[in-house]
Amino acid sequence: MSTPKHVAIVGATGAVGAEMIRCLEERQFPISQLTLLASARSAGKTLKFKGQDVVIKELTKDSFQGVDIALFSAGGGISKEFAPAAVAAGAVVVDNSSAFRMDDSVPLVVPEINGADVKNHKGIIANPNCSTAISLMALYPLHAAFGVKRIFASTYQAVSGTGAQAIEELASQSREWAAENRAWDAAQLDSKPTVYPYQIAFNVLPQVDSFIESGYTKEEMKMENEGRKIMHHPDFRASVTCVRVPVFRAHSIAVSAEFEKPVTVEAAREVLSKAPGLDVLDEPASRQYPLPLAVAGADNCVVGRIRKDCAMENGIAFWVVGDQLLKGAALNAVQIAELL
Amino acid sequence: MSTPKHVAIVGATGAVGAEMIRCLEERQFPISQLTLLASARSAGKTLKFKGQDVVIKELTKDSFQGVDIALFSAGGGISKEFAPAAVAAGAVVVDNSSAFRMDDSVPLVVPEINGADVKNHKGIIANPNCSTAISLMALYPLHAAFGVKRIFASTYQAVSGTGAQAIEELASQSREWAAENRAWDAAQLDSKPTVYPYQIAFNVLPQVDSFIESGYTKEEMKMENEGRKIMHHPDFRASVTCVRVPVFRAHSIAVSAEFEKPVTVEAAREVLSKAPGLDVLDEPASRQYPLPLAVAGADNCVVGRIRKDCAMENGIAFWVVGDQLLKGAALNAVQIAELL
Repeated sequence: MSTPKHVAIVGATGAVGAEMIRCLEERQFPISQLTLLASARSAGKTLKFKGQDVVIKELTKDSFQGVDIALFSAGGGISKEFAPAAVAAGAVVVDNSSAFRMDDSVPLVVPEINGADVKNHKGIIANPNCSTAISLMALYPLHAAFGVKRIFASTYQAVSGTGAQAIEELASQSREWAAENRAWDAAQLDSKPTVYPYQIAFNVLPQVDSFIESGYTKEEMKMENEGRKIMHHPDFRASVTCVRVPVFRAHSIAVSAEFEKPVTVEAAREVLSKAPGLDVLDEPASRQYPLPLAVAGADNCVVGRIRKDCAMENGIAFWVVGDQLLKGAALNAVQIAELL
Repeated sequence: MSTPKHVAIVGATGAVGAEMIRCLEERQFPISQLTLLASARSAGKTLKFKGQDVVIKELTKDSFQGVDIALFSAGGGISKEFAPAAVAAGAVVVDNSSAFRMDDSVPLVVPEINGADVKNHKGIIANPNCSTAISLMALYPLHAAFGVKRIFASTYQAVSGTGAQAIEELASQSREWAAENRAWDAAQLDSKPTVYPYQIAFNVLPQVDSFIESGYTKEEMKMENEGRKIMHHPDFRASVTCVRVPVFRAHSIAVSAEFEKPVTVEAAREVLSKAPGLDVLDEPASRQYPLPLAVAGADNCVVGRIRKDCAMENGIAFWVVGDQLLKGAALNAVQIAELL
């Protein structure tokens, strides 16, 4: 690696921010200085980095003097407002929000797929949507070998994707249900949710992000839009249903993918077993398949349930799971920073 | 309705059995006598029916003297062993297990779809798989109007589908997590599950029923196999991923369906709004869509998220939710009995 860098984390107190700090430490990222930025409310508090207390500073447009790399994970509004200031101060921004992902001048990067795109940056590099990144970790190697035409996918998305408050909402609802000693058929709590529109404990919500006119959600279309950009595949089509489930931190995605070329399960498994950042766990006879509870905390995504799709020619169905906070966010951002 | 019947429930102490008793009562099914049958372990206990205590008897091959209709919901093994005895004693069996569903001499019936098939019975009528019945409540009306070719579907299946012990497993795991005051990132419990191979609380399991050689599960293939039989549509194809989620009693299914004829969202919604046993709840702008926690306890299935599928011609995507214990099991069985 090159000379140590001055790295700033914007949104240091969030669920992704915490994982960014941990990823930088665990991956021994060469750091000369770490600046932690958050809202005024968190300023003055400290977080640990390599055993040292680092004082959190308030994010302002003057926060980026001397910063080489700024990792943003504080929502699209904050990115739009402060990323230009970071770039103006000479930093390269790796942005975890959706603010710049579809901007033609901004590379959208999964390092294992299109790491080379990083070099085209003009100050900002975007980190993809979490479900998209995790899905593509399995889909892209198959695309490279067999040429993907389209996918039909359904997601099982953890609450971590909505942030630390959503994690707390699932936890507190589960505790409330238990504390009230409720029966299984009294799962509807009296307390009103504040993060999600409906109770998430013992429920699933077929809405992630807001709706667009077609009836799809923005989240659902990210798979097609971001997938096209990351895979350099403008004809890629994806019909997706995105669903929030009462799981804390790993996303699962069920995918049926259609390819240009003939494909067998054996050939697909061979390709997937060699893919970087991806483990294959696919032994149905002994009930070995990826589970979000087991993949939580793991850097690699895990694919299983690989089978010949029974409703189309040249089709493969699979089930891929990845830690939303890691490959879906913090890890991918730090991997992008490593490419710089 | 005709003369009151002597009805027997096999598996009266199970989760579905309890709902069968409730359905018979609520729907004012004309009953001359109710016989509740279960294992020797439960014999002698009582259950309430119309305010009266009914003593549970041990299931034996001599249990069916004078019984007109026997509702079985005690697993495929019990059905195979005892249904022939019930038929021999003169009863008509409505069987909730998978034991006879694909038997050519056994009608497989969703009353709103193929109720007329009931008349072909030779003593046994099969109740469909729960995910299949709920999916078809929305798919069949669309098929009747536009001719379905194939679907890609993913399920979000409640634990009630595995029975009363599975319901208790989700409940007890959730209580254990809360009682130990665990953090969100310590969601993996120490206690070993007994019903499912892995913890179901804060997790999703991409396995329902056992695997077949193709890599699909038996449950996943029921949608195609049972769908063909119920819809009288031998060319119907379905690629399905069945997933267990930590929800107590309602199944949700995300479906992408391809049709022979051109179809618009407006035409699909018009068809669905007139379908029997189905409610349309589809107002994305005000976040109105079907939720398993809200559909729990409801007789009707509910469909929403109706949209033009963005990855195929003549495609409609939708999200349908139904109470697993009701339309997925007990209610459908009692509706079949009403047709007799």
